[in-house]
Amino acid sequence: MLNTTRGILDMNSFDAQALGDADSPLLKKRQKNAGAASVLFYEKPIEMVSASGCWMVDAAGTKYLDFYNNVPSVGHCHPHVVKAITDQLSLVNSHSRYLNELTETYVEKLKATFPNELDNVVMTCSGSEANDLAMRIATHNTKAEGFIVTESAYHGNTEFVTKVSPSAFKSGKHPDHVVAIPAPSRRVYGDDVATGFAEQIRLAIHKLQGRGYDIAAFICDSIFSSDGIFSDPEGFLKPAISAVHDAGGLYIADEVQPGFGRTGDCFWGFQRHNVVPDIVTMGKPMGNGYPVAGMAVRSDLLNSFCNNVGYFNTFGGTPVAAAAALSVLEVIEKEDLQHNAQKVGTYLKEKLISLQETDERIGDVRGAGLFIGLDLCYPESQEANGVLASQVINGLRDENILIGAAGPYGHTLKIRPPLCLSISEADLFGDAISRVLSKLK
Amino acid sequence: MLNTTRGILDMNSFDAQALGDADSPLLKKRQKNAGAASVLFYEKPIEMVSASGCWMVDAAGTKYLDFYNNVPSVGHCHPHVVKAITDQLSLVNSHSRYLNELTETYVEKLKATFPNELDNVVMTCSGSEANDLAMRIATHNTKAEGFIVTESAYHGNTEFVTKVSPSAFKSGKHPDHVVAIPAPSRRVYGDDVATGFAEQIRLAIHKLQGRGYDIAAFICDSIFSSDGIFSDPEGFLKPAISAVHDAGGLYIADEVQPGFGRTGDCFWGFQRHNVVPDIVTMGKPMGNGYPVAGMAVRSDLLNSFCNNVGYFNTFGGTPVAAAAALSVLEVIEKEDLQHNAQKVGTYLKEKLISLQETDERIGDVRGAGLFIGLDLCYPESQEANGVLASQVINGLRDENILIGAAGPYGHTLKIRPPLCLSISEADLFGDAISRVLSKLK
Repeated sequence: MLNTTRGILDMNSFDAQALGDADSPLLKKRQKNAGAASVLFYEKPIEMVSASGCWMVDAAGTKYLDFYNNVPSVGHCHPHVVKAITDQLSLVNSHSRYLNELTETYVEKLKATFPNELDNVVMTCSGSEANDLAMRIATHNTKAEGFIVTESAYHGNTEFVTKVSPSAFKSGKHPDHVVAIPAPSRRVYGDDVATGFAEQIRLAIHKLQGRGYDIAAFICDSIFSSDGIFSDPEGFLKPAISAVHDAGGLYIADEVQPGFGRTGDCFWGFQRHNVVPDIVTMGKPMGNGYPVAGMAVRSDLLNSFCNNVGYFNTFGGTPVAAAAALSVLEVIEKEDLQHNAQKVGTYLKEKLISLQETDERIGDVRGAGLFIGLDLCYPESQEANGVLASQVINGLRDENILIGAAGPYGHTLKIRPPLCLSISEADLFGDAISRVLSKLK
Repeated sequence: MLNTTRGILDMNSFDAQALGDADSPLLKKRQKNAGAASVLFYEKPIEMVSASGCWMVDAAGTKYLDFYNNVPSVGHCHPHVVKAITDQLSLVNSHSRYLNELTETYVEKLKATFPNELDNVVMTCSGSEANDLAMRIATHNTKAEGFIVTESAYHGNTEFVTKVSPSAFKSGKHPDHVVAIPAPSRRVYGDDVATGFAEQIRLAIHKLQGRGYDIAAFICDSIFSSDGIFSDPEGFLKPAISAVHDAGGLYIADEVQPGFGRTGDCFWGFQRHNVVPDIVTMGKPMGNGYPVAGMAVRSDLLNSFCNNVGYFNTFGGTPVAAAAALSVLEVIEKEDLQHNAQKVGTYLKEKLISLQETDERIGDVRGAGLFIGLDLCYPESQEANGVLASQVINGLRDENILIGAAGPYGHTLKIRPPLCLSISEADLFGDAISRVLSKLK
């Protein structure tokens, strides 16, 4: 049975309890152990036993090219990261109420990637924790409770953050203090996305005020991953952020998805829009799989919050978390991965645009660096075709390529391989999707 | 400047921005990097560079006996845990939407420690995430929003969980949907703690109802760590839990502190009270420092929740998290650490009780296994003496022993060394505290 979450994170997710392949003893164990929380990819789930670079290997020895997982961003099991974690694990792995050099070295290196305004960093375990804290800092400082998000946004899994994550709702409506606006798609806003999107922000502020809420923050992922990946034109966010600031709200840049060089042009997604966030949150690829996340924030905002409530995170900013995160920055630098994301991403996007020219079912190809969205549509109407997306995802699985979909209709292929993807691996993908689409004609 | 959090987690915590030792370049970096969130232990913070067993070593080579940190519960940098994490890190470290044997092996081993009713496990990164999820499941299933906690409880750092963590508030009052009751101290309830505590629960339910809230859950740490450590008599929680269930509420056992064998008598703290929780949350020692936490829950409760909202945790239940957590269970078993906690804990408690007999400033010694509370009081009045506790903490630091305090007045020494503590290390502590108290006469 398809998992029925409205958002498209789950287009290819299945409740383990309802899966067909019940002969698998491992699947049976999983069903028994995790129950209703056991959502898995593919109707016949895959058991992964090893991984390296852009490749994962299942229990039968089949190799899969990974175009889905954005956590192992510098490559699965990168030896430099493994060594950094291992070395520090044997030394000391305690909390941040003792000093340790590694954490400060890391935070200084991280801060150097941000605008000067963002002068404090708080480390957490997950992007959810980072967004939860960021939202608390926003409500505390603005004395307001309203939030604006995009319609299929996902920002995390805590109670507070789920309320601003429409894609996690299976039923029910938004709480009163949250207004969701359409994602910045040209389909919705036409060519002048910037003006239309800013206008929607102003309408949302007005709607919140009508319900008795001032705006605390607009929280957005600057590449709108779960909305369907909307990257261009660069700079379109700028008038929207001005509208937020004019109304006294903060701009929280959720960089959990586009951060750490993935967009190629810049290290952070928001930099493509030439805006300065009040708070930046980051997670997933930060430790290449080690649970580390964080928040960069203006010190005045953090100060005011900490005067009121203590914040401590047991596993946040430990020496091992810092070692993992530092090694990731080092690999990005040493292997020039941001540049590689730009180079291979541009190559891949061009290849997919060529494919689009010969196949009317590809409605659009867009993105930046190695974060590309490809819309699958009905040829005549150009309406979203989530069923075709699902068929392509499964067809690509038969070609040993892992991929998922995004957007409110599940029709956007979410193309986000590790940043170390090579040109020949990009070709493998391009050729495979071409074959899969041919077969589906 | 002393950190002013009301709760006592912070009795020995200092805002880094206000610390005196400003000659330290590392401290300066920390102040600049983490700003107001930079709370550190000791007025002159320690830089830790290595650790092993019950010992930590600072940058100057000074060795400290660790009686504070309950995360590295099987001993700092335990080689079996380090090896398990390292081995898996090199293989694959992806999310739980692919199957992996290690996670199911772990969850089965973990479930075997619980009552049969708790048949599902969801893995998270932190105890805060586990409690946040548990509370959501409680409100969803009971269709109620009220929570009962103890007066100096701490359950985590998200927005939702902070509201039930009075010890994290620096100012302000409880939100309307939360009622805090006095911790189960004999000072408050006399000898019949069980009856008095259950009566307080009933009053709290009544108070919630008066404010328009039914009870969703009573959430408690069964050894009441941040309230001041209240362990006895065994079984005193039973009537309180019955009162909660009678009113339609759930009992969430927060085992982040007492779990994994620390109390010696049982593997879980709630087992000392012969009660069956509806949900159990766990964290800190679960991965001996690797960020892994989780929740055991009745499948009917999880089912109903998941029908409504999706829950996914990127770093929860990865193969590396499972490897870390499994290796911890293996070490506890192989080194018989629960039994060691009981044996050495009993020895240490007796030693401290002997000291109490010669020193009227020790008001009480209580606890189970290697979780012991020692109250420091004014000799005549037997009133709480937080200042003396602070002096003892700093005196013990001069003896190269790390320790902290708990309880609403900060006068309870929180004694919780790694579970591998030896008799001779217990003696080191007993002798040192005796010397420190002598000097403070």
